Amino acid sequence: MSKAYFVGLDVGGTTMKAAVVDSDGLAGPAVVSDTESYKGQDHGLATMCDTIRKAVEAANKKLADIAAIGVATPGTMDIKAGLILDPPNLKPWRDVPVRDHILNHFKIPTAFQNDANAAAFGEYWVGAGRTAKSMVLFTLGTGVGGGIIINDYVLEGEHSHGGEIGHLKIEMTNGRRCGCGRLGCLEAYASATAVVKRCVEALEKDSGHSVLRQLLNKKESELTSRAIFTAAEQGDTLAQTIVEDTAYYLAVGAINMMHTIDPDAIVFAGGMIAAGESFLNRIRYHICELAFPVPASKTEVRYALLGSDAGFIGAAACARQLWLKSK
Amino acid sequence: MSKAYFVGLDVGGTTMKAAVVDSDGLAGPAVVSDTESYKGQDHGLATMCDTIRKAVEAANKKLADIAAIGVATPGTMDIKAGLILDPPNLKPWRDVPVRDHILNHFKIPTAFQNDANAAAFGEYWVGAGRTAKSMVLFTLGTGVGGGIIINDYVLEGEHSHGGEIGHLKIEMTNGRRCGCGRLGCLEAYASATAVVKRCVEALEKDSGHSVLRQLLNKKESELTSRAIFTAAEQGDTLAQTIVEDTAYYLAVGAINMMHTIDPDAIVFAGGMIAAGESFLNRIRYHICELAFPVPASKTEVRYALLGSDAGFIGAAACARQLWLKSK
Repeated sequence: MSKAYFVGLDVGGTTMKAAVVDSDGLAGPAVVSDTESYKGQDHGLATMCDTIRKAVEAANKKLADIAAIGVATPGTMDIKAGLILDPPNLKPWRDVPVRDHILNHFKIPTAFQNDANAAAFGEYWVGAGRTAKSMVLFTLGTGVGGGIIINDYVLEGEHSHGGEIGHLKIEMTNGRRCGCGRLGCLEAYASATAVVKRCVEALEKDSGHSVLRQLLNKKESELTSRAIFTAAEQGDTLAQTIVEDTAYYLAVGAINMMHTIDPDAIVFAGGMIAAGESFLNRIRYHICELAFPVPASKTEVRYALLGSDAGFIGAAACARQLWLKSK
Repeated sequence: MSKAYFVGLDVGGTTMKAAVVDSDGLAGPAVVSDTESYKGQDHGLATMCDTIRKAVEAANKKLADIAAIGVATPGTMDIKAGLILDPPNLKPWRDVPVRDHILNHFKIPTAFQNDANAAAFGEYWVGAGRTAKSMVLFTLGTGVGGGIIINDYVLEGEHSHGGEIGHLKIEMTNGRRCGCGRLGCLEAYASATAVVKRCVEALEKDSGHSVLRQLLNKKESELTSRAIFTAAEQGDTLAQTIVEDTAYYLAVGAINMMHTIDPDAIVFAGGMIAAGESFLNRIRYHICELAFPVPASKTEVRYALLGSDAGFIGAAACARQLWLKSK
């Protein structure tokens, strides 16, 4: 059988990225455009179409070679309707008919998906979950995003809220305030932002020596989660406590998925995985302490492999799924 | 098309219950046998076959009329292999090949499922979830069990631990000790057992008048979750606090499913739903406070409809699904 080709487009708050991806998950050259959401949604839709077209050119293909297009965007959204509703990271867009616009523009079948779900589907297809039948992805960045894939099915949810695993409530008493306004969400404990916040609080309470205090005093913006992980590696005890607690919180999120979804694989993605294998091992340790014995021993706990390409590769995976269903 | 008939068998720690169920979900007369697990697993398997046979007779059918059999049992288990492994409620059984035994005995296609998953599938098929595309069931009894159904798919999990929603960890700091030995599980807060335990603790701390104190002093076994709900209805403030907290804890469990599975319907089952509509409304209230606005407003929150028949009806639903796949 000859190969089929798809375009995956991942729209972010700052930039959007697209590439042609073949039916084996191999991606052609990626094309990046500025999203410039402040210029309005018509401009945004035009940039999407332009980026798709450039990705096709960069792969030395023609539009006629493309079997389907997949587009991933941040929420809020109505996935089934193909709409972005009121996206906090794409202001002032509202009720943008992304899927139908691209479908009508190119006359090519178009799939639409939440960006975190798409990233999960990308890792599931050709990344850290490629040998798994089911997988839960935790993306650790400013927030904690994620996606749930079960037997090739992206768990979108009935109201496009499937896989919002950053908003698992893991603490009922004196829970930390989350960016979403709620209390006790996983994201309020384990995002990169939360790591920094917990560190600042710890420095305020603690009078001992910590290299991080110098960073905080010098320039607060230098106190990043990466600096905290580095300090922990170098033996800073305050930083080590922050890192250890973070591993524990992520393990709580993971076991809550292991006791409900019970996937083959739990995958962590995002900037924080630069912390490396030792951090992953601390997460694994806490998972073994907290989970039922069988999932504890059998569930693969891994880092993601596709980096920031997961979104457009996953968008292409959604396109491929649409195409397979139409065959 | 003429009707197809299935047998559903629900094996419990004390009794097992079976009935013929037709392809519309209508059940014939139910037959009940004592499980008597202490007599050993060979006796147990023979009783299962006997109960199935009696259910067929009770429905005025012949074995040749039965398209498939479904058996639901408590865990621990390997669902895909059709095995009960080391069931705490069926001692001293171990590694019992339930599915293959029944299949070989009757030469009729046989499905095997966890009892809580089966109950969820029963409610999904013809009970409180019959209009839902996806549903999460919380069964409130000695423990908190449950099941997750997504588009007719029973989420068994890769290691037969899907839908163990009683073991969602909802409290990290000073979490209550669960029956499973872990800390902070939903079950440790919201099972009928936990309701009584919290009430006893509250009575120990509180010196005020409560009708429940008399029950506790007279005969501790009379302090049941039902007595606590009744006292709350009658205006006992201590009991009202216990009930309100229980509604809150269940809402935390519910929203954790709404932010990950995002089902159409959340259904509560088990003895505790005798507490009636006012209790359900308190759960709904807390869900609205805790969940994202869209799932909060759109997810149906209901009581189960099938009572203790949900297990065998759900087992029959599993049989029907096996039969449909074979067609």
